[in-house]
Amino acid sequence: MPSQDLETRYIAARAIAQEVGEMALDYFRSWADLTVEIKGHQDFVSEADKNVELAVRAKLASAFPDDGIVGEEGAAVLGTSGYTWVIDPVDGTTNFINGIAQWCVILACVFQGQVVIGVVHDPVHNELHHAVLGGGAFCNDRAIRCSLKTSLQEGSLGVGFSGRTHGDGIQRLVALCSAAGTMFWRNGSGGLSLAYVASGRILGYVEEHMNAWDFMAGHLLVSEAGGIREPVDIEHALVHGGRVVVAGAGVYDATKALAEAAFS
Amino acid sequence: MPSQDLETRYIAARAIAQEVGEMALDYFRSWADLTVEIKGHQDFVSEADKNVELAVRAKLASAFPDDGIVGEEGAAVLGTSGYTWVIDPVDGTTNFINGIAQWCVILACVFQGQVVIGVVHDPVHNELHHAVLGGGAFCNDRAIRCSLKTSLQEGSLGVGFSGRTHGDGIQRLVALCSAAGTMFWRNGSGGLSLAYVASGRILGYVEEHMNAWDFMAGHLLVSEAGGIREPVDIEHALVHGGRVVVAGAGVYDATKALAEAAFS
Repeated sequence: MPSQDLETRYIAARAIAQEVGEMALDYFRSWADLTVEIKGHQDFVSEADKNVELAVRAKLASAFPDDGIVGEEGAAVLGTSGYTWVIDPVDGTTNFINGIAQWCVILACVFQGQVVIGVVHDPVHNELHHAVLGGGAFCNDRAIRCSLKTSLQEGSLGVGFSGRTHGDGIQRLVALCSAAGTMFWRNGSGGLSLAYVASGRILGYVEEHMNAWDFMAGHLLVSEAGGIREPVDIEHALVHGGRVVVAGAGVYDATKALAEAAFS
Repeated sequence: MPSQDLETRYIAARAIAQEVGEMALDYFRSWADLTVEIKGHQDFVSEADKNVELAVRAKLASAFPDDGIVGEEGAAVLGTSGYTWVIDPVDGTTNFINGIAQWCVILACVFQGQVVIGVVHDPVHNELHHAVLGGGAFCNDRAIRCSLKTSLQEGSLGVGFSGRTHGDGIQRLVALCSAAGTMFWRNGSGGLSLAYVASGRILGYVEEHMNAWDFMAGHLLVSEAGGIREPVDIEHALVHGGRVVVAGAGVYDATKALAEAAFS
Protein backbone atom coordinates (compact mmCIF):
# COMPACT_ATOMS: atom_id res chain seq x y z
CA MET A 1 0.00 0.00 0.00
CA PRO A 2 1.34 3.43 -0.86
CA SER A 3 1.55 5.97 1.95
CA GLN A 4 -1.20 8.56 2.25
CA ASP A 5 1.17 11.20 0.86
CA LEU A 6 1.86 9.05 -2.15
CA GLU A 7 -1.76 8.06 -2.67
CA THR A 8 -2.81 11.72 -2.61
CA ARG A 9 -0.23 12.52 -5.24
CA TYR A 10 -1.20 9.53 -7.39
CA ILE A 11 -4.81 10.70 -7.47
CA ALA A 12 -3.72 14.27 -8.21
CA ALA A 13 -1.36 13.21 -10.97
CA ARG A 14 -4.14 11.43 -12.83
CA ALA A 15 -6.56 14.31 -12.36
CA ILE A 16 -4.06 16.92 -13.52
CA ALA A 17 -3.10 14.82 -16.55
CA GLN A 18 -6.74 14.63 -17.54
CA GLU A 19 -7.38 18.32 -16.99
CA VAL A 20 -4.40 19.57 -18.96
CA GLY A 21 -4.96 16.78 -21.47
CA GLU A 22 -8.30 18.39 -22.35
CA MET A 23 -6.55 21.71 -22.72
CA ALA A 24 -3.89 20.25 -25.00
CA LEU A 25 -6.56 18.43 -26.98
CA ASP A 26 -8.43 21.69 -27.57
CA TYR A 27 -5.24 23.18 -29.00
CA PHE A 28 -4.63 20.05 -31.07
CA ARG A 29 -8.13 20.11 -32.56
CA SER A 30 -8.30 23.82 -33.24
CA TRP A 31 -4.89 23.55 -34.84
CA ALA A 32 -6.12 20.80 -37.15
CA ASP A 33 -9.07 22.98 -38.18
CA LEU A 34 -6.88 25.89 -39.19
CA THR A 35 -5.97 26.26 -42.81
CA VAL A 36 -2.49 25.27 -43.87
CA GLU A 37 -1.59 28.92 -44.35
CA ILE A 38 -2.36 29.80 -40.78
CA LYS A 39 -0.66 26.63 -39.59
CA GLY A 40 2.63 28.13 -40.60
CA HIS A 41 2.62 30.44 -37.63
CA GLN A 42 4.93 29.15 -34.95
CA ASP A 43 3.22 31.38 -32.39
CA PHE A 44 0.34 29.02 -31.97
CA VAL A 45 2.60 26.12 -31.04
CA SER A 46 4.59 28.16 -28.57
CA GLU A 47 1.37 29.32 -26.98
CA ALA A 48 -0.05 25.81 -26.66
CA ASP A 49 3.14 24.36 -25.23
CA LYS A 50 3.70 27.20 -22.80
CA ASN A 51 0.13 27.41 -21.56
CA VAL A 52 -0.17 23.68 -20.94
CA GLU A 53 3.15 23.70 -19.09
CA LEU A 54 2.08 26.67 -16.99
CA ALA A 55 -1.20 24.95 -16.13
CA VAL A 56 0.57 21.81 -14.91
CA ARG A 57 3.00 23.82 -12.81
CA ALA A 58 0.23 25.95 -11.30
CA LYS A 59 -1.87 22.90 -10.39
CA LEU A 60 1.08 21.11 -8.82
CA ALA A 61 2.25 24.19 -6.92
CA SER A 62 -1.25 24.75 -5.61
CA ALA A 63 -1.78 21.16 -4.46
CA PHE A 64 1.76 20.43 -3.26
CA PRO A 65 3.55 23.72 -2.57
CA ASP A 66 6.53 21.98 -0.99
CA ASP A 67 7.23 19.63 -3.92
CA GLY A 68 9.93 20.19 -6.49
CA ILE A 69 9.20 20.43 -10.26
CA VAL A 70 11.53 19.54 -13.12
CA GLY A 71 10.47 19.89 -16.73
CA GLU A 72 11.57 20.64 -20.25
CA GLU A 73 10.58 24.29 -20.08
CA GLY A 74 11.25 26.73 -17.29
CA ALA A 75 13.60 26.58 -14.33
CA ALA A 76 13.62 23.62 -11.95
CA VAL A 77 11.75 24.25 -8.70
CA LEU A 78 13.50 22.80 -5.67
CA GLY A 79 11.12 21.39 -3.08
CA THR A 80 11.39 20.56 0.59
CA SER A 81 8.92 17.64 0.82
CA GLY A 82 11.22 15.12 -0.80
CA TYR A 83 8.81 14.69 -3.74
CA THR A 84 9.89 15.98 -7.14
CA TRP A 85 7.53 16.12 -10.13
CA VAL A 86 9.06 15.46 -13.52
CA ILE A 87 6.80 16.70 -16.29
CA ASP A 88 6.48 16.96 -20.05
CA PRO A 89 3.12 18.56 -20.82
CA VAL A 90 3.30 17.65 -24.53
CA ASP A 91 5.63 14.83 -25.54
CA GLY A 92 5.76 14.24 -29.29
CA THR A 93 5.61 17.94 -30.12
CA THR A 94 6.43 17.44 -33.79
CA ASN A 95 3.45 15.11 -34.14
CA PHE A 96 1.31 17.53 -32.14
CA ILE A 97 2.08 20.51 -34.33
CA ASN A 98 1.60 18.50 -37.49
CA GLY A 99 -1.80 17.12 -36.53
CA ILE A 100 -0.60 13.54 -36.01
CA ALA A 101 -2.43 11.86 -33.13
CA GLN A 102 0.68 10.43 -31.47
CA TRP A 103 1.53 12.62 -28.50
CA CYS A 104 0.91 12.54 -24.76
CA VAL A 105 0.96 14.38 -21.46
CA ILE A 106 3.58 13.02 -19.03
CA LEU A 107 3.80 13.37 -15.26
CA ALA A 108 6.17 11.41 -13.06
CA CYS A 109 6.98 11.81 -9.40
CA VAL A 110 10.33 10.94 -7.79
CA PHE A 111 10.82 10.22 -4.08
CA GLN A 112 14.02 9.07 -2.40
CA GLY A 113 15.75 8.22 -5.67
CA GLN A 114 12.87 6.21 -7.09
CA VAL A 115 10.14 6.96 -9.59
CA VAL A 116 7.01 6.40 -7.49
CA ILE A 117 4.28 7.66 -9.85
CA GLY A 118 4.09 7.51 -13.62
CA VAL A 119 1.28 8.90 -15.78
CA VAL A 120 1.27 8.93 -19.61
CA HIS A 121 -2.00 10.34 -20.88
CA ASP A 122 -3.14 10.19 -24.50
CA PRO A 123 -6.17 12.52 -24.65
CA VAL A 124 -6.95 11.88 -28.33
CA HIS A 125 -7.63 8.21 -27.65
CA ASN A 126 -8.75 8.70 -24.05
CA GLU A 127 -6.04 6.40 -22.75
CA LEU A 128 -4.67 7.33 -19.35
CA HIS A 129 -1.75 5.02 -18.55
CA HIS A 130 -0.80 5.17 -14.89
CA ALA A 131 1.19 3.38 -12.23
CA VAL A 132 2.22 3.83 -8.61
CA LEU A 133 5.24 1.99 -7.24
CA GLY A 134 4.14 -1.48 -6.17
CA GLY A 135 0.57 -0.98 -7.35
CA GLY A 136 0.61 -2.36 -10.87
CA ALA A 137 0.08 -0.55 -14.17
CA PHE A 138 -3.21 0.47 -15.73
CA CYS A 139 -4.73 1.98 -18.84
CA ASN A 140 -7.76 3.81 -17.49
CA ASP A 141 -9.28 1.15 -15.20
CA ARG A 142 -7.82 -1.85 -16.96
CA ALA A 143 -4.67 -3.59 -15.71
CA ILE A 144 -1.99 -3.74 -18.40
CA ARG A 145 1.10 -5.81 -18.76
CA CYS A 146 4.09 -6.09 -21.04
CA SER A 147 4.21 -8.57 -23.88
CA LEU A 148 4.84 -12.16 -22.85
CA LYS A 149 6.50 -12.95 -26.16
CA THR A 150 9.89 -14.56 -26.07
CA SER A 151 11.34 -13.61 -29.47
CA LEU A 152 11.97 -10.23 -31.05
CA GLN A 153 10.77 -11.75 -34.30
CA GLU A 154 7.24 -11.85 -32.92
CA GLY A 155 6.66 -8.10 -32.93
CA SER A 156 8.00 -4.57 -33.27
CA LEU A 157 10.62 -2.76 -31.24
CA GLY A 158 10.17 0.92 -30.54
CA VAL A 159 13.20 3.10 -31.20
CA GLY A 160 13.83 6.73 -30.48
CA PHE A 161 16.32 9.26 -31.66
CA SER A 162 16.99 12.89 -30.98
CA GLY A 163 19.47 15.49 -32.08
CA ARG A 164 21.18 15.18 -28.68
CA THR A 165 23.01 12.05 -29.84
CA HIS A 166 25.12 11.31 -32.87
CA GLY A 167 23.39 9.47 -35.70
CA ASP A 168 25.72 6.48 -35.58
CA GLY A 169 23.89 4.80 -32.74
CA ILE A 170 20.45 4.78 -34.30
CA GLN A 171 21.89 3.63 -37.63
CA ARG A 172 23.50 0.65 -35.98
CA LEU A 173 20.34 -0.03 -34.00
CA VAL A 174 18.20 -0.15 -37.13
CA ALA A 175 20.71 -2.45 -38.80
CA LEU A 176 20.73 -4.71 -35.76
CA CYS A 177 16.92 -4.79 -35.68
CA SER A 178 16.89 -6.00 -39.28
CA ALA A 179 19.50 -8.61 -38.52
CA ALA A 180 17.49 -9.77 -35.50
CA GLY A 181 14.35 -10.09 -37.60
CA THR A 182 12.37 -7.48 -35.70
CA MET A 183 10.64 -4.42 -37.09
CA PHE A 184 11.69 -1.04 -35.75
CA TRP A 185 8.89 1.42 -35.09
CA ARG A 186 9.35 5.13 -34.47
CA ASN A 187 6.22 7.14 -33.79
CA GLY A 188 8.03 10.26 -32.60
CA SER A 189 6.73 10.17 -29.02
CA GLY A 190 9.06 8.31 -26.68
CA GLY A 191 6.63 8.73 -23.79
CA LEU A 192 3.77 7.14 -25.66
CA SER A 193 6.04 4.38 -26.96
CA LEU A 194 7.02 3.47 -23.39
CA ALA A 195 3.35 3.28 -22.43
CA TYR A 196 2.85 0.97 -25.42
CA VAL A 197 5.59 -1.29 -24.08
CA ALA A 198 3.70 -1.44 -20.78
CA SER A 199 0.49 -2.40 -22.54
CA GLY A 200 2.24 -5.00 -24.70
CA ARG A 201 1.56 -3.16 -27.97
CA ILE A 202 5.25 -3.16 -28.82
CA LEU A 203 7.84 -5.56 -27.43
CA GLY A 204 10.28 -3.03 -26.03
CA TYR A 205 11.83 0.38 -26.51
CA VAL A 206 15.40 1.58 -26.93
CA GLU A 207 16.77 5.12 -27.04
CA GLU A 208 20.36 6.18 -26.58
CA HIS A 209 19.48 9.25 -24.56
CA MET A 210 16.20 10.51 -23.14
CA ASN A 211 15.53 13.38 -20.81
CA ALA A 212 14.09 12.62 -17.38
CA TRP A 213 10.66 14.10 -18.21
CA ASP A 214 10.37 11.93 -21.30
CA PHE A 215 11.17 8.55 -19.80
CA MET A 216 10.58 8.39 -16.04
CA ALA A 217 6.82 7.86 -16.12
CA GLY A 218 7.13 5.18 -18.80
CA HIS A 219 9.98 3.53 -16.94
CA LEU A 220 7.72 2.93 -13.94
CA LEU A 221 4.81 1.85 -16.15
CA VAL A 222 6.95 -0.85 -17.75
CA SER A 223 8.27 -2.07 -14.44
CA GLU A 224 4.80 -2.21 -12.88
CA ALA A 225 3.51 -3.99 -16.00
CA GLY A 226 5.92 -6.86 -15.47
CA GLY A 227 8.61 -5.69 -17.85
CA ILE A 228 12.31 -5.14 -17.25
CA ARG A 229 14.15 -1.84 -17.46
CA GLU A 230 17.87 -1.24 -17.59
CA PRO A 231 18.77 0.32 -14.20
CA VAL A 232 19.17 4.09 -14.20
CA ASP A 233 20.50 6.32 -11.43
CA ILE A 234 17.38 8.45 -11.03
CA GLU A 235 19.02 11.40 -9.23
CA HIS A 236 21.68 11.62 -11.92
CA ALA A 237 19.09 11.23 -14.67
CA LEU A 238 16.98 14.07 -13.27
CA VAL A 239 19.72 16.41 -14.39
CA HIS A 240 21.44 14.58 -17.22
CA GLY A 241 18.86 12.13 -18.59
CA GLY A 242 20.06 8.70 -19.56
CA ARG A 243 19.86 5.66 -21.81
CA VAL A 244 16.56 3.84 -21.88
CA VAL A 245 16.22 0.12 -22.54
CA VAL A 246 12.95 -1.55 -21.52
CA ALA A 247 11.11 -4.64 -22.72
CA GLY A 248 8.85 -7.49 -21.78
CA ALA A 249 10.70 -10.02 -19.65
CA GLY A 250 10.89 -12.60 -22.44
CA VAL A 251 12.71 -10.31 -24.85
CA TYR A 252 14.61 -8.05 -22.48
CA ASP A 253 17.97 -9.81 -22.80
CA ALA A 254 17.78 -9.71 -26.58
CA THR A 255 16.73 -6.06 -26.51
CA LYS A 256 19.52 -5.15 -24.14
CA ALA A 257 22.01 -6.93 -26.39
CA LEU A 258 20.87 -4.83 -29.36
CA ALA A 259 21.33 -1.65 -27.35
CA GLU A 260 24.78 -2.70 -26.15
CA ALA A 261 25.88 -3.46 -29.68
CA ALA A 262 24.36 -0.31 -31.14
CA PHE A 263 25.66 2.18 -28.60
CA SER A 264 29.04 0.65 -27.73
CA MET B 1 -14.57 17.27 -64.55
CA PRO B 2 -14.45 13.53 -64.13
CA SER B 3 -16.72 11.45 -66.35
CA GLN B 4 -20.00 10.20 -64.94
CA ASP B 5 -18.54 6.69 -64.63
CA LEU B 6 -15.64 8.03 -62.65
CA GLU B 7 -17.76 10.31 -60.49
CA THR B 8 -20.06 7.40 -59.61
CA ARG B 9 -17.07 5.33 -58.57
CA TYR B 10 -15.54 8.19 -56.58
CA ILE B 11 -18.73 8.54 -54.55
CA ALA B 12 -18.96 4.78 -54.06
CA ALA B 13 -15.31 4.49 -53.00
CA ARG B 14 -15.82 7.00 -50.21
CA ALA B 15 -19.06 5.40 -49.07
CA ILE B 16 -17.59 1.90 -49.06
CA ALA B 17 -14.49 3.06 -47.18
CA GLN B 18 -16.70 4.58 -44.52
CA GLU B 19 -18.93 1.54 -44.25
CA VAL B 20 -16.18 -1.01 -43.93
CA GLY B 21 -14.22 1.46 -41.81
CA GLU B 22 -16.98 1.22 -39.20
CA MET B 23 -16.78 -2.53 -39.39
CA ALA B 24 -13.01 -2.55 -38.93
CA LEU B 25 -13.33 -0.04 -36.09
CA ASP B 26 -15.76 -2.34 -34.29
CA TYR B 27 -13.19 -5.11 -34.49
CA PHE B 28 -10.42 -2.76 -33.36
CA ARG B 29 -12.39 -1.60 -30.33
CA SER B 30 -13.65 -4.99 -29.24
CA TRP B 31 -10.12 -6.27 -29.61
CA ALA B 32 -8.80 -3.55 -27.34
CA ASP B 33 -11.37 -4.50 -24.72
CA LEU B 34 -10.30 -8.12 -24.65
CA THR B 35 -7.88 -9.22 -22.00
CA VAL B 36 -4.27 -9.73 -22.97
CA GLU B 37 -4.70 -13.49 -22.63
CA ILE B 38 -7.44 -13.65 -25.21
CA LYS B 39 -5.50 -11.28 -27.43
CA GLY B 40 -3.10 -14.09 -28.07
CA HIS B 41 -5.53 -15.83 -30.35
CA GLN B 42 -4.66 -15.25 -33.95
CA ASP B 43 -8.15 -16.34 -35.00
CA PHE B 44 -9.66 -13.00 -34.12
CA VAL B 45 -7.28 -11.13 -36.41
CA SER B 46 -7.80 -13.47 -39.30
CA GLU B 47 -11.54 -13.11 -38.88
CA ALA B 48 -11.41 -9.31 -38.83
CA ASP B 49 -9.12 -9.08 -41.84
CA LYS B 50 -11.06 -11.63 -43.87
CA ASN B 51 -14.49 -10.27 -43.10
CA VAL B 52 -13.56 -6.67 -43.90
CA GLU B 53 -11.95 -7.78 -47.16
CA LEU B 54 -15.02 -9.84 -48.09
CA ALA B 55 -17.26 -6.88 -47.35
CA VAL B 56 -15.28 -4.58 -49.64
CA ARG B 57 -15.27 -7.13 -52.45
CA ALA B 58 -19.00 -7.79 -52.10
CA LYS B 59 -19.86 -4.08 -52.16
CA LEU B 60 -17.68 -3.43 -55.20
CA ALA B 61 -18.96 -6.49 -57.05
CA SER B 62 -22.54 -5.45 -56.36
CA ALA B 63 -22.09 -1.83 -57.47
CA PHE B 64 -19.70 -2.45 -60.37
CA PRO B 65 -19.98 -6.07 -61.48
CA ASP B 66 -17.81 -5.48 -64.56
CA ASP B 67 -14.86 -3.96 -62.67
CA GLY B 68 -11.70 -5.83 -61.75
CA ILE B 69 -10.47 -6.20 -58.16
CA VAL B 70 -6.88 -6.63 -56.96
CA GLY B 71 -6.02 -6.95 -53.30
CA GLU B 72 -3.70 -8.47 -50.76
CA GLU B 73 -6.01 -11.38 -50.00
CA GLY B 74 -7.87 -13.54 -52.46
CA ALA B 75 -7.51 -13.99 -56.18
CA ALA B 76 -7.50 -11.04 -58.56
CA VAL B 77 -10.81 -10.52 -60.35
CA LEU B 78 -10.43 -9.53 -63.97
CA GLY B 79 -12.99 -6.99 -65.13
CA THR B 80 -14.30 -5.93 -68.52
CA SER B 81 -15.16 -2.27 -67.82
CA GLY B 82 -11.56 -1.07 -67.84
CA TYR B 83 -11.76 -0.06 -64.18
CA THR B 84 -9.73 -2.06 -61.65
CA TRP B 85 -10.09 -1.60 -57.89
CA VAL B 86 -6.95 -2.00 -55.84
CA ILE B 87 -7.78 -2.54 -52.19
CA ASP B 88 -6.24 -3.10 -48.78
CA PRO B 89 -9.06 -3.29 -46.24
CA VAL B 90 -6.71 -2.97 -43.26
CA ASP B 91 -3.28 -1.44 -43.87
CA GLY B 92 -1.05 -1.39 -40.80
CA THR B 93 -2.22 -4.79 -39.59
CA THR B 94 0.45 -5.09 -36.91
CA ASN B 95 -0.72 -1.82 -35.38
CA PHE B 96 -4.33 -2.94 -35.74
CA ILE B 97 -3.84 -6.22 -33.92
CA ASN B 98 -1.81 -4.55 -31.19
CA GLY B 99 -4.34 -1.84 -30.46
CA ILE B 100 -2.25 1.00 -31.93
CA ALA B 101 -4.43 3.60 -33.64
CA GLN B 102 -2.33 3.85 -36.80
CA TRP B 103 -4.06 1.86 -39.54
CA CYS B 104 -6.37 2.59 -42.43
CA VAL B 105 -8.73 1.28 -45.08
CA ILE B 106 -7.41 1.77 -48.62
CA LEU B 107 -9.27 1.80 -51.92
CA ALA B 108 -7.77 2.89 -55.21
CA CYS B 109 -9.16 2.63 -58.73
CA VAL B 110 -7.06 2.28 -61.89
CA PHE B 111 -8.25 3.16 -65.38
CA GLN B 112 -6.18 3.15 -68.57
CA GLY B 113 -2.88 2.86 -66.73
CA GLN B 114 -3.56 5.67 -64.28
CA VAL B 115 -4.71 5.78 -60.70
CA VAL B 116 -7.94 7.76 -60.97
CA ILE B 117 -9.35 7.43 -57.45
CA GLY B 118 -7.53 7.19 -54.13
CA VAL B 119 -9.15 6.80 -50.72
CA VAL B 120 -7.27 6.33 -47.44
CA HIS B 121 -9.69 6.21 -44.54
CA ASP B 122 -8.68 6.39 -40.87
CA PRO B 123 -11.84 5.46 -38.97
CA VAL B 124 -10.33 5.92 -35.49
CA HIS B 125 -9.73 9.60 -36.13
CA ASN B 126 -12.59 10.02 -38.59
CA GLU B 127 -10.27 11.20 -41.34
CA LEU B 128 -11.30 10.19 -44.83
CA HIS B 129 -8.55 11.22 -47.24
CA HIS B 130 -9.73 11.14 -50.84
CA ALA B 131 -8.81 12.27 -54.32
CA VAL B 132 -10.01 11.87 -57.88
CA LEU B 133 -7.66 12.51 -60.78
CA GLY B 134 -7.65 16.23 -61.53
CA GLY B 135 -10.00 17.06 -58.67
CA GLY B 136 -7.64 17.89 -55.83
CA ALA B 137 -7.12 16.06 -52.55
CA PHE B 138 -9.26 16.27 -49.42
CA CYS B 139 -9.45 15.13 -45.83
CA ASN B 140 -13.20 14.83 -45.26
CA ASP B 141 -14.46 18.13 -46.74
CA ARG B 142 -11.24 20.07 -46.31
CA ALA B 143 -8.76 20.54 -49.15
CA ILE B 144 -5.30 19.30 -48.22
CA ARG B 145 -1.94 19.92 -49.71
CA CYS B 146 1.62 18.73 -49.30
CA SER B 147 4.13 20.61 -47.22
CA LEU B 148 5.55 23.73 -48.81
CA LYS B 149 8.80 23.42 -46.91
CA THR B 150 12.00 23.55 -48.87
CA SER B 151 14.43 21.71 -46.59
CA LEU B 152 14.35 18.20 -45.17
CA GLN B 153 15.68 19.67 -41.96
CA GLU B 154 12.31 21.34 -41.37
CA GLY B 155 10.38 18.16 -40.64
CA SER B 156 10.17 14.38 -40.64
CA LEU B 157 10.43 11.93 -43.49
CA GLY B 158 8.25 8.83 -43.44
CA VAL B 159 10.04 5.57 -44.16
CA GLY B 160 8.74 2.10 -44.69
CA PHE B 161 10.23 -1.32 -44.66
CA SER B 162 8.94 -4.83 -45.16
CA GLY B 163 10.37 -8.29 -45.17
CA ARG B 164 10.10 -8.29 -48.98
CA THR B 165 13.34 -6.33 -49.25
CA HIS B 166 16.79 -6.84 -47.80
CA GLY B 167 17.59 -4.80 -44.71
CA ASP B 168 20.51 -2.98 -46.33
CA GLY B 169 18.34 -0.40 -48.04
CA ILE B 170 16.49 0.80 -44.96
CA GLN B 171 19.74 0.91 -42.97
CA ARG B 172 21.33 3.17 -45.55
CA LEU B 173 18.17 5.28 -45.72
CA VAL B 174 18.15 5.86 -41.96
CA ALA B 175 21.84 6.76 -42.06
CA LEU B 176 21.23 9.17 -44.93
CA CYS B 177 18.29 10.76 -43.09
CA SER B 178 20.56 11.46 -40.14
CA ALA B 179 23.22 12.90 -42.38
CA ALA B 180 20.63 15.10 -44.10
CA GLY B 181 19.40 16.39 -40.74
CA THR B 182 15.90 15.01 -41.10
CA MET B 183 14.06 12.75 -38.67
CA PHE B 184 12.84 9.42 -39.98
CA TRP B 185 9.38 8.38 -38.87
CA ARG B 186 7.93 4.89 -39.21
CA ASN B 187 4.40 4.37 -37.98
CA GLY B 188 3.94 0.94 -39.55
CA SER B 189 1.18 1.96 -41.97
CA GLY B 190 2.52 3.00 -45.36
CA GLY B 191 -0.96 3.91 -46.57
CA LEU B 192 -1.58 6.29 -43.71
CA SER B 193 1.92 7.74 -44.06
CA LEU B 194 1.24 8.58 -47.70
CA ALA B 195 -1.98 10.34 -46.70
CA TYR B 196 0.06 12.28 -44.15
CA VAL B 197 2.39 13.41 -46.93
CA ALA B 198 -0.65 14.67 -48.82
CA SER B 199 -1.85 16.63 -45.80
CA GLY B 200 1.62 18.05 -45.11
CA ARG B 201 2.01 16.28 -41.78
CA ILE B 202 5.26 14.70 -42.92
CA LEU B 203 7.50 16.01 -45.67
CA GLY B 204 7.65 12.89 -47.82
CA TYR B 205 7.72 9.13 -47.80
CA VAL B 206 10.19 6.57 -49.11
CA GLU B 207 9.90 2.80 -49.32
CA GLU B 208 12.00 0.46 -51.39
CA HIS B 209 9.07 -1.75 -52.34
CA MET B 210 5.35 -1.43 -51.73
CA ASN B 211 2.50 -3.51 -53.07
CA ALA B 212 -0.02 -1.86 -55.37
CA TRP B 213 -2.83 -1.94 -52.78
CA ASP B 214 -0.63 -0.19 -50.23
CA PHE B 215 0.58 2.74 -52.29
CA MET B 216 -1.71 3.55 -55.23
CA ALA B 217 -4.33 5.51 -53.31
CA GLY B 218 -1.68 7.52 -51.50
CA HIS B 219 0.23 8.10 -54.71
CA LEU B 220 -2.77 9.90 -56.20
CA LEU B 221 -3.46 11.78 -52.97
CA VAL B 222 0.07 13.20 -52.98
CA SER B 223 -0.09 14.18 -56.62
CA GLU B 224 -3.48 15.86 -56.22
CA ALA B 225 -2.20 17.63 -53.10
CA GLY B 226 0.53 19.35 -55.08
CA GLY B 227 3.33 16.93 -54.27
CA ILE B 228 5.64 15.03 -56.59
CA ARG B 229 5.83 11.27 -56.97
CA GLU B 230 8.51 9.24 -58.67
CA PRO B 231 6.89 7.86 -61.84
CA VAL B 232 5.68 4.27 -61.63
CA ASP B 233 4.41 2.01 -64.42
CA ILE B 234 0.97 1.37 -62.95
CA GLU B 235 0.14 -1.75 -64.99
CA HIS B 236 3.45 -3.31 -63.99
CA ALA B 237 3.01 -2.25 -60.38
CA LEU B 238 -0.46 -3.82 -60.21
CA VAL B 239 1.28 -7.19 -60.36
CA HIS B 240 4.75 -6.54 -59.00
CA GLY B 241 4.44 -3.46 -56.80
CA GLY B 242 7.22 -0.92 -56.95
CA ARG B 243 9.42 1.66 -55.28
CA VAL B 244 7.65 4.64 -53.76
CA VAL B 245 9.19 8.08 -53.43
CA VAL B 246 6.85 11.01 -52.83
CA ALA B 247 7.27 14.42 -51.24
CA GLY B 248 6.21 18.01 -51.23
CA ALA B 249 7.56 19.83 -54.26
CA GLY B 250 10.14 21.78 -52.27
CA VAL B 251 11.83 18.70 -50.87
CA TYR B 252 11.21 16.16 -53.60
CA ASP B 253 14.64 16.38 -55.21
CA ALA B 254 16.37 15.94 -51.86
CA THR B 255 14.05 13.05 -50.98
CA LYS B 256 14.65 11.39 -54.34
CA ALA B 257 18.40 11.76 -53.86
CA LEU B 258 18.17 9.96 -50.50
CA ALA B 259 16.24 7.10 -52.09
CA GLU B 260 18.70 6.82 -54.98
CA ALA B 261 21.64 6.68 -52.61
CA ALA B 262 19.93 4.25 -50.22
CA PHE B 263 18.67 1.76 -52.77
CA SER B 264 21.42 1.89 -55.37
